[in-house]
Amino acid sequence: MSITFPGGFRAWGTRAGIKPSGKPDLAMIVRDGPSDRAGSAMVFTRSVIVGAPVIIGREARASLLSPVGSPGRLAALRAVLVNAGNSNSATGQPGIDDARACMSAAAALLGCDAREVLPSSTGIIGRPLPVDKITRQLPELHASLARGDEADRRAAEAIMTTDMRPKTSRREVVIDGATIRIGAIAKGSGMIAPRLDSARGPSAPSATMLAFITTDACVASADLQDLLERTSGASFERISVDNHPSCSDTVVCVASGASPGPRLVPGTAGFVAFASAMAEVCDELSMAIIRDGEGATRIFRVRVRGAAREADAAMIAREVVNSPLVKCAIHGRDPNWGRLVTAAGNAGVSFDPHLASLKIGPVEVFRAGVPITPALSDPRLKDAMSGGAQGLVECELTIGDGPGESFMIGCDLSREYVTINADYTT
Amino acid sequence: MSITFPGGFRAWGTRAGIKPSGKPDLAMIVRDGPSDRAGSAMVFTRSVIVGAPVIIGREARASLLSPVGSPGRLAALRAVLVNAGNSNSATGQPGIDDARACMSAAAALLGCDAREVLPSSTGIIGRPLPVDKITRQLPELHASLARGDEADRRAAEAIMTTDMRPKTSRREVVIDGATIRIGAIAKGSGMIAPRLDSARGPSAPSATMLAFITTDACVASADLQDLLERTSGASFERISVDNHPSCSDTVVCVASGASPGPRLVPGTAGFVAFASAMAEVCDELSMAIIRDGEGATRIFRVRVRGAAREADAAMIAREVVNSPLVKCAIHGRDPNWGRLVTAAGNAGVSFDPHLASLKIGPVEVFRAGVPITPALSDPRLKDAMSGGAQGLVECELTIGDGPGESFMIGCDLSREYVTINADYTT
Repeated sequence: MSITFPGGFRAWGTRAGIKPSGKPDLAMIVRDGPSDRAGSAMVFTRSVIVGAPVIIGREARASLLSPVGSPGRLAALRAVLVNAGNSNSATGQPGIDDARACMSAAAALLGCDAREVLPSSTGIIGRPLPVDKITRQLPELHASLARGDEADRRAAEAIMTTDMRPKTSRREVVIDGATIRIGAIAKGSGMIAPRLDSARGPSAPSATMLAFITTDACVASADLQDLLERTSGASFERISVDNHPSCSDTVVCVASGASPGPRLVPGTAGFVAFASAMAEVCDELSMAIIRDGEGATRIFRVRVRGAAREADAAMIAREVVNSPLVKCAIHGRDPNWGRLVTAAGNAGVSFDPHLASLKIGPVEVFRAGVPITPALSDPRLKDAMSGGAQGLVECELTIGDGPGESFMIGCDLSREYVTINADYTT
Repeated sequence: MSITFPGGFRAWGTRAGIKPSGKPDLAMIVRDGPSDRAGSAMVFTRSVIVGAPVIIGREARASLLSPVGSPGRLAALRAVLVNAGNSNSATGQPGIDDARACMSAAAALLGCDAREVLPSSTGIIGRPLPVDKITRQLPELHASLARGDEADRRAAEAIMTTDMRPKTSRREVVIDGATIRIGAIAKGSGMIAPRLDSARGPSAPSATMLAFITTDACVASADLQDLLERTSGASFERISVDNHPSCSDTVVCVASGASPGPRLVPGTAGFVAFASAMAEVCDELSMAIIRDGEGATRIFRVRVRGAAREADAAMIAREVVNSPLVKCAIHGRDPNWGRLVTAAGNAGVSFDPHLASLKIGPVEVFRAGVPITPALSDPRLKDAMSGGAQGLVECELTIGDGPGESFMIGCDLSREYVTINADYTT
């Protein structure tokens, strides 16, 4: 089980005929039960160009975070309505109207306010959303909502686009004697390099990456929001398939409060345990996305240490992981470390090359600005470039003695990536 | 003719055995005649990690720009010694020592100061420069120096790495009755996205791109430096094959003063005419480089208009031209304009999507934030995506009504790019 693993949720996925392929393309996740123990949080792409669902979602988030007792305040989402095959992005006001029509239709079936339904769309950009196809399918989708393996599988499959595999995760922790569950589904394969926003203004570090997380914990929206932003920054924002953030990137977490435990409050041991489980779920989804990167045969992690600030280290790691030349070297299992080092030098972060060192796996190939030539014939270097059993190439770049460190995880660039994206036609 | 088209220059290219292929890999360009009418200018990569020749070149530039009469001031370069097959980059102090050994050997043959010889290297990163191979070949190279088509062709070919074609340009203008000539050779195919520095500190907007320009004009080094920086910013810095600036990017211009005309002074009609011819040479070389981009089958220009500032427009154009998804769409002749618009939204520049419009060729596909759906069936769109007779796809993005505009020229991303760079082994 995944998305309906926690108590208080039902889900389903079906075919609405949005995808030309006729594959499943419409999913709904519904939270049941009272709202007084429920909460919701969400982060979206930081792109200037965003999908209509992102515009609507930001409004919902503002309402969720308004002071308790504010008129019309949303306590939590009731449902997330997701379609694949059309991203409803770059569609202007008509796109917003289309999304609202779908929200209203779903709300009528659920008996809730339309604002309690979050729309989410992924697929082709700049085409009118086929509202009729969606609303025509909604009654059956609503009637099919269920808990369990089949519901979870159908929901996870209906949100896929170029994904080869559905992506799911779940964790269970016992906090103060109560069992707390977290479940999740995600999609993403191309247009993956999430840089997510913050409810309080522009945050740290974009794909269509969609991730939907449910939990039966009782946690306030504001606290869940802070946790989701922090956790996303250390997971979803640390992966890049193609350095092209999407206009639709969305991570949503809905808490039902169905577990009988007390409300989780930041600073308590219980919240720490919950946060840790949430981090594991986001890590697992992120790794599933980067491993399913379009055309990817191998992934690599670039750790940068010794920077003045974490942000500097992150900028360098991002520059390295996105270099097409580095990605091709990873594809060819070629220890062409000069590409890694020069990419680091292009990040706009100043450092002293004489303090720079690079390890690939266990093998130091560059130390204090000078190549270690014998390293190139070290048999461990070949093993490291192949990624070992995990298919993960580990690169560690030290640029000085500062406290700042960060990392990024990327995938190789293959001929298959070009095939997928040159032939995926509008 | 190209590099020896202007009076006062000789050149040659030969095989030193640096390239494993055994192809030509060592070239020299020599300025003859007195230094009192000569001048030199150069711009280099802005990367933190730079080749030993760049470190040495920056020293030479500082000397050229020191006040006339300063002790030990360089008046102009006597020679440029270029090798391909080894970039002498990320090689630390040993790399600098190696480059100086080559400079000294060349200077002994030329009868000049070693500082008057500029080294320039392109090729594999992080390997010791094979000094012996170079110095062993220098006497014959020096003895072969000549003017004319064969000399120019040999020099242009010896500086190539993954280039499919040698790149040359020349112009001739008559200024105040005197004929002024400009000649040039360049190389570059991968690791191309030049961002060049400024003698006066970090400048505007890096590949191994090497461009060597000669002229018989009489122009002071400081004036030539200003002109070269401005001209490079509008040409070399406007192309990107793979968004990976090189540690070795170099543009050098040497003026011999061999033409009998008066010294060219900024602000005069003569200087404007000279600057215009220089701009044409740099444009021609830039276009030759991007058309020869690794694996490129088609090129595209992204013009951005209506930004608050030119720098904002340039950032957006750079983001679009470097998106792998956009590059694949160009490769597939797919008018998937959503990729262009969303890439623009990721550039870190704020704009109002409702003021944004996009034209591909003559066809407006997106206006005021809303798709123009009939445009997708406009037959002119298919023509525009094929690039027409020039193989150049023109994209024009307007993001508002500000005065800032800029452009970038990129190439498509093909399976061949991956083949070249996954198999080009260390």
